[in-house]
Amino acid sequence: MPPIKKYLFTPGPTEVPPDVLLEMARPIIHHRTPEFSAELDRVRERLKPLFGTKQEVLVLSASGTGAMEAAVCNLLAPGDEAIFVNGGKFGERWGKLLSAHAMAAREVKVEWGRALDPAQIEAAISRYPRARAVFVQASETSTTAIHPVEELGEITRGRDLLLVVDGITSVGVYEQRMDDWAVDALVSGSQKALMLPPGLGLIALSERAWERARALKTPRYYFDLTRELKAQRDEHTTAYTPAVGLVRGLNKSLELIHNETLPTVFARHRMMAEAVHDGARALGLKLFAVESPAPGVTGILAPEGTDAAKVVRLMRDDLGVGVQAGQDHMRTKLIRIGHMGYVAPFDMLVALSALELALRRHGYEFSAGAAVGAVQRRLASSA
Amino acid sequence: MPPIKKYLFTPGPTEVPPDVLLEMARPIIHHRTPEFSAELDRVRERLKPLFGTKQEVLVLSASGTGAMEAAVCNLLAPGDEAIFVNGGKFGERWGKLLSAHAMAAREVKVEWGRALDPAQIEAAISRYPRARAVFVQASETSTTAIHPVEELGEITRGRDLLLVVDGITSVGVYEQRMDDWAVDALVSGSQKALMLPPGLGLIALSERAWERARALKTPRYYFDLTRELKAQRDEHTTAYTPAVGLVRGLNKSLELIHNETLPTVFARHRMMAEAVHDGARALGLKLFAVESPAPGVTGILAPEGTDAAKVVRLMRDDLGVGVQAGQDHMRTKLIRIGHMGYVAPFDMLVALSALELALRRHGYEFSAGAAVGAVQRRLASSA
Repeated sequence: MPPIKKYLFTPGPTEVPPDVLLEMARPIIHHRTPEFSAELDRVRERLKPLFGTKQEVLVLSASGTGAMEAAVCNLLAPGDEAIFVNGGKFGERWGKLLSAHAMAAREVKVEWGRALDPAQIEAAISRYPRARAVFVQASETSTTAIHPVEELGEITRGRDLLLVVDGITSVGVYEQRMDDWAVDALVSGSQKALMLPPGLGLIALSERAWERARALKTPRYYFDLTRELKAQRDEHTTAYTPAVGLVRGLNKSLELIHNETLPTVFARHRMMAEAVHDGARALGLKLFAVESPAPGVTGILAPEGTDAAKVVRLMRDDLGVGVQAGQDHMRTKLIRIGHMGYVAPFDMLVALSALELALRRHGYEFSAGAAVGAVQRRLASSA
Repeated sequence: MPPIKKYLFTPGPTEVPPDVLLEMARPIIHHRTPEFSAELDRVRERLKPLFGTKQEVLVLSASGTGAMEAAVCNLLAPGDEAIFVNGGKFGERWGKLLSAHAMAAREVKVEWGRALDPAQIEAAISRYPRARAVFVQASETSTTAIHPVEELGEITRGRDLLLVVDGITSVGVYEQRMDDWAVDALVSGSQKALMLPPGLGLIALSERAWERARALKTPRYYFDLTRELKAQRDEHTTAYTPAVGLVRGLNKSLELIHNETLPTVFARHRMMAEAVHDGARALGLKLFAVESPAPGVTGILAPEGTDAAKVVRLMRDDLGVGVQAGQDHMRTKLIRIGHMGYVAPFDMLVALSALELALRRHGYEFSAGAAVGAVQRRLASSA
């Protein structure tokens, strides 16, 4: 018997609020109409504070990886050299994207779970002076660590070096100040803090990134951002048929976010992260990203001898609580609990309760209720 | 006051059935689960008869243009020569895609509204013997004409020349026999006969197209079909985060289509096309695509001196009946009525009624009810 009620605490897709599901269930409209133009304009305006930018935010009908590819092929030409931070699966993806487009990808390796040290980038720049861009994750979802984007901006802003940031689990999760931090490209996706199903990619570019994009004549069409900017900013529509339902859903979810207000949303994410950290420690477990844990997802190391993937499967299939195991070599070692988007602090009681039950069934010993009690104390102290 | 009830008879997006809207409004599931794998497998199996193929049909999170780009960049390398049929806006798009990827695009021009003459392709092959592929639309939505794909397959099948077909308004509209017709790539999208919002692209390749794709090392990542085939066929998932909601909706719409049965769906589309043709003629109006009209969309030439774009706007804004004007130089001359997907023959009474009312307000004279009566006679004779 599957559980009657299911919970989704994965680091994306995240649960979609009923109001957003209903919005997307409304009869479809045509995309070349004043009605759709108004929706698109509103979405793009409402996204700017989440990006921390006065620049245009473009909406692409593709998942986050498509928007990452758009950043790569609009800002660099084949043969160009670029530095990328590889501290997890998504950092690795920047490298693969660069190589797929025949760019010289120069890796800065960060141990999984650790945050990048900005000095590593200084060193990489000295070693590869011809590099034209630095690619990094704000929040590396696979390891649950965050990288110091603001400090990277200090390094790149004075140089002819673009800073390209994957903000897929940072935009809407915690404060992003794209303009102040001198980020040249910030990418995101719909299925994380934006509380939507996957299918939309988002991207904003700085002035100097737009100059680079306009000057480049590299192979691109569906992801040609110069064409897309003209369509979205000047013609109030998209270059190609947009995912109409998702755009309307996004409008609704952005309305919910701005009604809650961004500072409250960010504080809620932070509080849930702290509650999960406390719960894990109360079970005698360690966080994977100790120095620099992400506000949107927490990685907990499974107890010695316990298979994390099995714990995760038990939580999902027997208890109805969806969380995620680690990736690659961390698959059997890491349990990732997502807490961004449509998730309330109370939900962390459920997440840690299920974790307790699953660990106990796997023979791990602790005092029942230890984690749940720790979550409750955090809720009480933050109330 | 806007009309209380709205109708959507555009050639895409088309109306989404309530059952499909409800399916997409269900709580989201994670995409790396047995549950999603089962959904994706079912979708891909259910698509094959619509494509007329035993090959794998891949689902991409992108609109149709993304799937068109996937065909281009997986089958040709920069510098390769290719013939494309330019008989409208979408034919033109093949040319732009080829040029964007630095391929030598050799145009075969077809007058708007006309069907390609296969002899034009024979001539182009003689003229460009190094061409490696022919790109064409099955149904050119902008002009409402269809091209003779089966006859093109007769020409290309014995040569080292791939036949790449845009089936965005043919798949699910009328019978496609990809394998029998020797089509090497057939592309489609979600927002036409498949009765979904835009946001999914679909593509199937022939054996020899797969050989070409595997051998090519051209710049591609998000649209890398070789990688995507491995993910979807062998791993029962997608290479990158899929548009989960749309995939589930597609499963439901394919269920509806197969319940109706494909022959019945195709006959319904054909009957609606004939009803609209009869209605137009009864008003003394001419079809744009006389020789070879599309089963999914009909183009009616506005009366001399009447602005088609204004008629269309009046139908949409004052009467609540969404149809579409022509594109480019046909914007003020052509009225396009879509009749594919979730549209019943009775709906054509509504479409022609609104057309009558709008034309009358623009001063065009005819006997009131002429078009509606013609539609009704067609319904009676087909019943």
